Amino acid sequence: MSDDALVIFTPSGKRGRVARGTTVLAAARKLGVDLDSVCGGRGICSKCQVSPGYGEFSKHGVTVAPAALSDWNAVEERYDRVRGLKEGRRLGCQACIQGDVVIDVPPESQVHRQVIRKSASDRVMAMDPATRRYYVEVREPDMHEPTGDFQRLAEALESQWEIKGLAADPSLLGKLQKTLRKGDWKVTVAVFHDHLGPPRIVDLWPGFHDAPLYGLAVDLGSTTIAAHLASLTDGRVLASSGLMNPQIRFGEDLMSRVSYAMMNPGGDAEMTSAVRAGLNTLAEALAEEAKIEPADIVEVVVVCNPVMHHLLLGIDPVELGQAPFALATSDAVGLAAAEIGLTAINPGARGYLLPLIAGHVGADAAAVALSEEPYNSGDLALIVDVGTNAEILLGDSRRVLACSSPTGPAFEGAQISSGQRAAPGAIERVEIDPATKEPRFRVIGCELWSDDPGFAEATAATGVTGICGSGIIEAVAEMRIAGLLDPSGLIGSAEQTGTPRCEPQGRTHAYLIHDGSADGGSRITVTQGDIRAIQLAKSALYAGARLLMDELGVDRVDRVVLAGAFGAHISPKHAMVLGMIPDCPLDKVTSAGNAAGTGARIALCSVAARRAIEAEVRRIHKVETAIEPRFQEHFVAANAIPHASDPFPELSRVVTLPAVSFNTGGGGEAGGRRRRRG
Amino acid sequence: MSDDALVIFTPSGKRGRVARGTTVLAAARKLGVDLDSVCGGRGICSKCQVSPGYGEFSKHGVTVAPAALSDWNAVEERYDRVRGLKEGRRLGCQACIQGDVVIDVPPESQVHRQVIRKSASDRVMAMDPATRRYYVEVREPDMHEPTGDFQRLAEALESQWEIKGLAADPSLLGKLQKTLRKGDWKVTVAVFHDHLGPPRIVDLWPGFHDAPLYGLAVDLGSTTIAAHLASLTDGRVLASSGLMNPQIRFGEDLMSRVSYAMMNPGGDAEMTSAVRAGLNTLAEALAEEAKIEPADIVEVVVVCNPVMHHLLLGIDPVELGQAPFALATSDAVGLAAAEIGLTAINPGARGYLLPLIAGHVGADAAAVALSEEPYNSGDLALIVDVGTNAEILLGDSRRVLACSSPTGPAFEGAQISSGQRAAPGAIERVEIDPATKEPRFRVIGCELWSDDPGFAEATAATGVTGICGSGIIEAVAEMRIAGLLDPSGLIGSAEQTGTPRCEPQGRTHAYLIHDGSADGGSRITVTQGDIRAIQLAKSALYAGARLLMDELGVDRVDRVVLAGAFGAHISPKHAMVLGMIPDCPLDKVTSAGNAAGTGARIALCSVAARRAIEAEVRRIHKVETAIEPRFQEHFVAANAIPHASDPFPELSRVVTLPAVSFNTGGGGEAGGRRRRRG
Repeated sequence: MSDDALVIFTPSGKRGRVARGTTVLAAARKLGVDLDSVCGGRGICSKCQVSPGYGEFSKHGVTVAPAALSDWNAVEERYDRVRGLKEGRRLGCQACIQGDVVIDVPPESQVHRQVIRKSASDRVMAMDPATRRYYVEVREPDMHEPTGDFQRLAEALESQWEIKGLAADPSLLGKLQKTLRKGDWKVTVAVFHDHLGPPRIVDLWPGFHDAPLYGLAVDLGSTTIAAHLASLTDGRVLASSGLMNPQIRFGEDLMSRVSYAMMNPGGDAEMTSAVRAGLNTLAEALAEEAKIEPADIVEVVVVCNPVMHHLLLGIDPVELGQAPFALATSDAVGLAAAEIGLTAINPGARGYLLPLIAGHVGADAAAVALSEEPYNSGDLALIVDVGTNAEILLGDSRRVLACSSPTGPAFEGAQISSGQRAAPGAIERVEIDPATKEPRFRVIGCELWSDDPGFAEATAATGVTGICGSGIIEAVAEMRIAGLLDPSGLIGSAEQTGTPRCEPQGRTHAYLIHDGSADGGSRITVTQGDIRAIQLAKSALYAGARLLMDELGVDRVDRVVLAGAFGAHISPKHAMVLGMIPDCPLDKVTSAGNAAGTGARIALCSVAARRAIEAEVRRIHKVETAIEPRFQEHFVAANAIPHASDPFPELSRVVTLPAVSFNTGGGGEAGGRRRRRG
Repeated sequence: MSDDALVIFTPSGKRGRVARGTTVLAAARKLGVDLDSVCGGRGICSKCQVSPGYGEFSKHGVTVAPAALSDWNAVEERYDRVRGLKEGRRLGCQACIQGDVVIDVPPESQVHRQVIRKSASDRVMAMDPATRRYYVEVREPDMHEPTGDFQRLAEALESQWEIKGLAADPSLLGKLQKTLRKGDWKVTVAVFHDHLGPPRIVDLWPGFHDAPLYGLAVDLGSTTIAAHLASLTDGRVLASSGLMNPQIRFGEDLMSRVSYAMMNPGGDAEMTSAVRAGLNTLAEALAEEAKIEPADIVEVVVVCNPVMHHLLLGIDPVELGQAPFALATSDAVGLAAAEIGLTAINPGARGYLLPLIAGHVGADAAAVALSEEPYNSGDLALIVDVGTNAEILLGDSRRVLACSSPTGPAFEGAQISSGQRAAPGAIERVEIDPATKEPRFRVIGCELWSDDPGFAEATAATGVTGICGSGIIEAVAEMRIAGLLDPSGLIGSAEQTGTPRCEPQGRTHAYLIHDGSADGGSRITVTQGDIRAIQLAKSALYAGARLLMDELGVDRVDRVVLAGAFGAHISPKHAMVLGMIPDCPLDKVTSAGNAAGTGARIALCSVAARRAIEAEVRRIHKVETAIEPRFQEHFVAANAIPHASDPFPELSRVVTLPAVSFNTGGGGEAGGRRRRRG
């Protein structure tokens, strides 16, 4: 019998020879196998469970005998008695290799395991968290060798976990002293270690502490702040929530906030305080919803546009309001969460802001890229994240371009006469019968259509209160399909369209979708002004996409990905009728849900992902829409529904648009033509 | 004529060949010659001035012609016209090497120049500051290559100054944007770069900014906080000041402050706030005195004992109140000055705390070591820093030992019946005529002795208000020499001593030094209690020194260095009469002034010094007095004046002590004997 033995680990297939008597955990470390352990091989944490294979394994060319591992020892027996060990499992830190053996590492024993998400975005999340817990036994102080408690803890982490160059904020050192004594020199330490700095103590607990740690993935938008509370152990989302960005009171859109900072000394600091307060409120709400302690939140990843980014960091965004839109800093930022005012969570928590792509293309676009990975795409993908600004990415594995387009808030239901945010009672789907010109619709919070029996009763609680972003897009597209709108966007009169729902309104017309006024409810119409707002927004979006296509020298894209909270609800057919997106086979238009939020979650769960997106962002080519003459040309040409300048062959396979024209040369003439002169 | 030329730099003697046409500055950099430059060779800063040598230099084996350097160029002419260039000087960044040449770098053009100090401690200060200014020209932002302003500044510092991996606090980024624009993309940046972390922006100014930067060297004692404001360019001290440690109200000595923290929840935080507020007050006062802006103070170095250290950092010092006196952290600490609450100075300022030697031997002792360098001493040096605690170092280049001894505040005039702090009006020198037993004295603020004509007039403004630390030591020693005290420390009666100045006081006696009561002034006496306090203090000091001598296995030391603000004023003869220090040739007892403060200044001026003391502190062997039985033995044995157990041959060469004895067996019996039973 030779002194060493062959070990093969599955599923990695890693193999090698180790001295007989080596523990499975030690063998795994030696061979670079991903086998978890928090207690460092002391038989406490049970993270290192493995399933040894016995019998013949001819495909590996080894014969494995049941005696290939040492017998159960007292630690395993006690563990099984107290906490139960699954059939066939061993503790990797206790079982010793006695002969050739194949050892399977089950998914739950892998540090970098992939976890299937069941909620909103069914996403495989690769775990490589920056913050991990380590159980260590620390040397007691010795008057004759008077080193500090921190130095002895650092020494223990180095010798027991190979963590070198440990750092700690002075504010943690007092707690460190108390915890070491409370735990009788055995403590569990949460260490944050990313690619930007040395390993750093986040928090610590007496003895072995197995409670999970959590992180926040925040999508900080101009209008809303959305956040997920996720476990840093398996990436599971425990709670998701959102609130209005409290900066709204300083201006609805980005440029009005930049103006506020320019016009009001200290205005930037006011907005910084407001958004930081909002983040704290959100963090507390999420912790309460998930029934965890806010102090168990030890990381926060934020994605946002450049203005939000600078205001969150406390940087006056004034330079972002004027060419050349110079960022104060463009790289990813790693800092203490307290430095961005996040005081509601663990005081040692760390923060990470994804890199910015350009002065108008933010960390939110970087997060979309991280989520959708155009740089790994074989076909040419157009990725559009629709919000108050649209972030647009176009590319494939060879090259990725990015730009931002100022769509304004119309797609979110703002600046629309009956517009409202997506909430119960808001119209989200609209259909108009091309023959009768009668509409039917659905509201958020109810599965019935408005012409289904029982709709009135089902919506009695909320009523029909307005029309949200996806609803207004469907309404406008359906109006065009039904011949209520001409290609220039003009609403016809009752005479021209043959329906009394086209009511006069000043010198133009409006289309009545719902009249609840008899019951004290609201009258919901689509006005000519609403049509113009949507036309401006969709023209901006389309022009941005076309600009990138020009830059890449292509006329078509292989697929379109709609992202943004809103992307999940929009129907590809209506987006194409409206001319929001370039022509593309309908089955190639998909929704990515809240891709920016997903990107934030991916970064929260993985240091490797942070490294990857930082490298990719450097390779992305940025196109600045604000100074590009072709953007204005595309913008003007895209005003019609659908565009006069584009053939849209795919669209004609889906729907035939009527060749109506309501243009009477009067005062209600299309804004698009006026713009053409501008 | 060959394409290259031989260049020899003096005083370094560095030499090498460079291509003809190379500037002197570039040649200096290539050859590793210490030639300063702030503007990076743009002819702005004039820091790179050199004196070329012409003619024969046979000792170097070269012949140098006046044509060895290029002619004056327009930049030098303009500089000379506007600001004046000394005779024979050239700007190293403008003058090009045309042939073999010897170039002298004058002291003011050396970065690491040594500056002679003229004030308190005449100290050669080697400059290697952590914070330096760099003038850079930064690329303007480009919409098509949208990097951040910070990234372009970092790129400029790397390409123009070889400063890699620049870091900045987010709070500076807003200022960075404004400054870059104000300076039209030319800025001067103060960069802090020590051995503990990456280079970091401290502050920046538009254009070329030549105003000096300053630092604070703080000696944070239990009783007083003393600080020097020094230039980081040449180490010059512009102002020095001190104030009472505001923590005094929580307890006079260290242990009472530790007790306060133990007994009062939040008491440590109160003390932390108090000392931080004190530092800010001191910083403002120093800036005002030196007529500089507090924002020009960009560094602070603090030396202090471990309890002060922990309280300054916001760490509960409770562990330092009980064995094993475990430090929270023992290594040197580098942090933002704001992290220790120093908000009165530049917001980007950095702080550095010297390493602690042991639980009772602090960064102040490390600073004394840095100042006095026992580890570089050829002979065996005993270094004693006397304050509320005495820090004692013993050693030479082979080995250095350290301990701390709890002398209490008696040496500082506290707990003395007529004691007061060293301030105008305080008695600082005392002589007693051995024949008449009459005293004469001097007070701080007056050059005259009390028996000189005109003394009363000269001191009329202050009066004679009390007796300070050095005064009480001289008084006690002189009383012993004059036969007013017996070796056990007992004051004789008027009958026993033959002078009515020995007045009864309860069951003991007191010696009257000054009676101003006739004029409404004070009566200043040395009481039996005062003698006991001094005996306890000097016994503790002596016992600590002896303990280290035991540990090293020596009976004698080669020299004694008295440090501490107080060390400057104490007379070696009286220290030896009192038995404060082991016997040693009188001419080998020197004063180092405020060595801890000097050490702080050295560290402030030099990163190399910080590195050096951190390495040396690891090598220093620590001896813990509190648990060492021999310390108690030495303490008890050292009670007599001079000690019964020591022969003190040196002392007998200086003074003969009378063999009196006043011990009557009564209630006033010596505390020393009572202790022997304890």
